[in-house]
Amino acid sequence: MKTINAFDPAALADLPERRQALIRRREALLGPAYRLFYQDPVELVRGDGVWVWDAEGKRYLDAYNNVVSLGHCHPHVLQALQAQAARLNTHTRYLSEPLLDYAERLLATHHGSLDRLMFTCTGSEANDLALRLAQFYTGGTGVIVTEWAYHGVTQTTSGCSPSLGTIASGVPHVYTVPAPRAYGLGGPVEADVGAAFAAGVDAALARMQSDGVRPAALLFDSLFTSDGVYGAPMGFLADAVSRAQAAGMVVIADEVQPGFGRTGTHFWGYQRHGIAPDIVTMGKPMGNGHPLAGLCARHDMLDAFARETRYFNTFGGNTVSAAVGMAVLDVIEGERLLHNTATQGQYFAESLHGLARRHVSVGDVRQFGLFLGVELVHDGDPSRPAAAFTTRVVNGMKERGVLISACSPRANVLKIRPPLVLQRAHVDFFIETLDDCLKHLLPGD
Amino acid sequence: MKTINAFDPAALADLPERRQALIRRREALLGPAYRLFYQDPVELVRGDGVWVWDAEGKRYLDAYNNVVSLGHCHPHVLQALQAQAARLNTHTRYLSEPLLDYAERLLATHHGSLDRLMFTCTGSEANDLALRLAQFYTGGTGVIVTEWAYHGVTQTTSGCSPSLGTIASGVPHVYTVPAPRAYGLGGPVEADVGAAFAAGVDAALARMQSDGVRPAALLFDSLFTSDGVYGAPMGFLADAVSRAQAAGMVVIADEVQPGFGRTGTHFWGYQRHGIAPDIVTMGKPMGNGHPLAGLCARHDMLDAFARETRYFNTFGGNTVSAAVGMAVLDVIEGERLLHNTATQGQYFAESLHGLARRHVSVGDVRQFGLFLGVELVHDGDPSRPAAAFTTRVVNGMKERGVLISACSPRANVLKIRPPLVLQRAHVDFFIETLDDCLKHLLPGD
Repeated sequence: MKTINAFDPAALADLPERRQALIRRREALLGPAYRLFYQDPVELVRGDGVWVWDAEGKRYLDAYNNVVSLGHCHPHVLQALQAQAARLNTHTRYLSEPLLDYAERLLATHHGSLDRLMFTCTGSEANDLALRLAQFYTGGTGVIVTEWAYHGVTQTTSGCSPSLGTIASGVPHVYTVPAPRAYGLGGPVEADVGAAFAAGVDAALARMQSDGVRPAALLFDSLFTSDGVYGAPMGFLADAVSRAQAAGMVVIADEVQPGFGRTGTHFWGYQRHGIAPDIVTMGKPMGNGHPLAGLCARHDMLDAFARETRYFNTFGGNTVSAAVGMAVLDVIEGERLLHNTATQGQYFAESLHGLARRHVSVGDVRQFGLFLGVELVHDGDPSRPAAAFTTRVVNGMKERGVLISACSPRANVLKIRPPLVLQRAHVDFFIETLDDCLKHLLPGD
Repeated sequence: MKTINAFDPAALADLPERRQALIRRREALLGPAYRLFYQDPVELVRGDGVWVWDAEGKRYLDAYNNVVSLGHCHPHVLQALQAQAARLNTHTRYLSEPLLDYAERLLATHHGSLDRLMFTCTGSEANDLALRLAQFYTGGTGVIVTEWAYHGVTQTTSGCSPSLGTIASGVPHVYTVPAPRAYGLGGPVEADVGAAFAAGVDAALARMQSDGVRPAALLFDSLFTSDGVYGAPMGFLADAVSRAQAAGMVVIADEVQPGFGRTGTHFWGYQRHGIAPDIVTMGKPMGNGHPLAGLCARHDMLDAFARETRYFNTFGGNTVSAAVGMAVLDVIEGERLLHNTATQGQYFAESLHGLARRHVSVGDVRQFGLFLGVELVHDGDPSRPAAAFTTRVVNGMKERGVLISACSPRANVLKIRPPLVLQRAHVDFFIETLDDCLKHLLPGD
C-alpha cells in the first residue's frame, strides 16, 4: 500500500548525512508501518504560531496542521496546560467541576438533541466508541462509509477506513459508497451531488438487505477529506442522512477534521448541511495538540449502552485535558477565529483561483474555510490526474518553506490546512510559493 | 452490570448539597456509562506526591493510583512537560531525535527480541493494535484471556474484557481460562498454579480446534489484576506461554498495570516469569498521567502488518509525549524506585500480615512490589467472600483519608496501588487506617 507523500526508503543514500543517520535509527527502533513525510524528511525542533523550524534553523509555514489549529504553542492553551498539570491530573471516577464546565460549553456548540458527552484521547477511540454505540442501539452491524474514507486505526475503525488499504474482516460489515464529488472521475455536476450521494446510500442499504445484514451506522467526515476534500454544495448531505435515519441507521458525523471552526462558516462541519446527526465525534484540534477527543450523542443512545456495560477511559477527560479543552474554546471565541477563518479562507480561495487562471495544471479549487483542496491535472483535463506532479509540488513547497500534503484515491489533490490564526501575508507567501512550484516543476509524469 | 465501589445514584439525596449538585450536573452532561467511585464521591482539586486534596481541603493518601505512579505533579516530569509543550508538539511523520532517544531507552528495558516500538495514547489502543498485529501475523482470530480479564474499551479489546460484563460479538473469537489463583474458589494450591493455568490454556486451544477457530493470541496481565491480583509463584506463567507459542499463538503481555517497576523486583511484570512474550503493551504510568501508551514487538511481527497497511496515531509518540516518557524513565532510575518499591512493598506486606493475625476477615494478602490485594472473607473461610464488607471497608478507608478500591469476580479483594515513591510513614498511616476499619465496620453482609 503506497502512502501519498511518504518517504521512499530506497532513496535513503541520497539524503544528507544527519537525516540518513536519523532515519536508519528510526528504522531500527520503530515499527515499519510508520511513514515519514517527504522525499527528504523534515526534522522539526520548534514551533510558534503558523511557523515551525527544522534542526538547521530553516523556517516553514505549517499549512498542514489541523491539530495545532490555533497555532503552535498558543500562549493561552500552554498556560492552561502548565498550570493544571502543576495542580492535579486525575480521572473521571472522581468529581471535577472544571470538566463539567467544559462539557457544558462544548455541548452548547452542538445541535440540541446531542445532550451527553463522552471523552476519549484520540479520534480513533471516539469513532470506535461511536460504532459500538450504534451497534448496541440498532442491534445491527452494517456500516456505510465512502470509498476512500479514513476513520481511525483501531481494529474496528481501520475496518471502516478503505484508504488504509486493508479491511479488517468480520465486524462491522462495511459497505462503501462513492464520495460526493463534482469534479473528475465522471462524477455528477455540483447541483446533483446530493441526489447522487443519497442514491449511493440507498444502493448500499439495498446490498445490506440482500446480504441479510442489519444496518447500524452511516459514518462520514462532512468534508470527505481522504476522498479528496468535497464539501459543496452546502446542504447536500441532508437527503442521504434522511434516508439513513429512515432505515434505522445511526448517523455519525466524524468531525475530527472539519470541526472546531475549520470551515469558517460554522463551528461544526455537519452544521453546514443543516442536519442533525445522532452522534458527533471530535478530535485532532480539540486540545491543540494535547491528546483529547470524544463524542456527543443523544442520551437515549447512550442509555442503551450503559445498561449493558460501563465505560472508563483512564486519560479521557482527565483534569489536564479539561483545562486544555476549555482554553481552546476560549481562544476560538476570544480571537474570533471563525471570522478569521472565513475571511482568510475566502482570500486564499480567490488567490488560488487567480493561480488557476495562469496554470492549466490547477484543475479545481475547493475551499471550506481554511480547509482547501487543489486538484492537479494534465492540460486542464479532469480525467487526467497528475499524481507524480502533485508529489513533486508537495516536495517543492517544502523545499521552498511551506508544509502541505496530498490526498484522494487519484493522489492528485493538494491538502491544505493552515492554522486558523493564519493572516493575509501568510496566504500571500503560500501563493507565491505555489506559483513558483507550478512554474518551475515539470508537469510530466 | 454492577461495578465494584461504584456510586449508587439511588443514594443521591443523602449526600451533602455540593456533591448532589455536581452529580446532577454530571448526569445531565456526561454519558451514563461513566461510574463515580464511592457512596459519597470525592471531588479532587489538588495533588502532590502521594497526597490529594478534595474541595473542602481534606487530605487523602492516594493508594489507588497506578497512573501517577511517581506521585502527583512530580517536579521533573512536570518540568519536561511544560518545557516541551512550550517548544513544539508535533507528530511521527516528521523526524524527531528525542523520540528516538526515548524509544531506545525504553526498548533497552525489555528482553532482546522485542526490538521495535509503536506509540499510542491509551492502553486500549495498544492492546487493540497488539490484537490486530497478532491476527495479521497468525491469520487466526482466536484469543485466550482469563475469566474476569480487563484489556480495554475499544470494540475489540472490550470483547476481550469479560469483567466489563459484555462480550462484543464476532471478532476476535474469545476463549476464557480460569485465573491462576491459589486462594478461595477451590483453586489449586500455590505449587500447582502453573500446571493448572497451562491446563486451562490447553483446554481453550482444544475448544478452538473443535470450533474450527485458528489461534491468534494469548493475552494476559501478569498480575491478573481484575481477576483478583494473582502473581505467585514467580515463574508460573512459563508453561502456559510455551504451550501457546507451540500452538502458533502470539503471546501478548499486557503491562499496563504491572509495568514500569510496579512489582519492585523487575521493571516489567512478565520478567518475573522468565518468559519472552512476542508483544508487550504499555500504558497508564508510562507518562505519569499524560496520555502515553504503546507496544513493543518482534520486528518480523510488525513487518507482516506493515506490508498490508500503514499506521499513524496523530498524538501517539508526539514530541511532548516523548519528553514526558523520558522524564518518567529518568525518575524511575534516578530515584531508584524499583528498590523503594521492593522495600516498601515488603514492609507493607509484613504489616498487612500483622493485621491478618488480628482480624479473621483478612483471608489472604497478596503483594507484588507496590501492587497489593487483600482478600476479605467471613470468619477466615476462603469460600465465603465478604463483598459487602469489602465495599464498606473501601468507603471507610476513604472517610478516614485513604483512597483504594476493590476487584475480583467475588468483589472481595481490596486493590491497593500506591505511588512508587511511598515511604514507611505512609504505610503506617495506611495500616492504622485499615486496622480501624476492620475493627469498627460491621462484617455481616
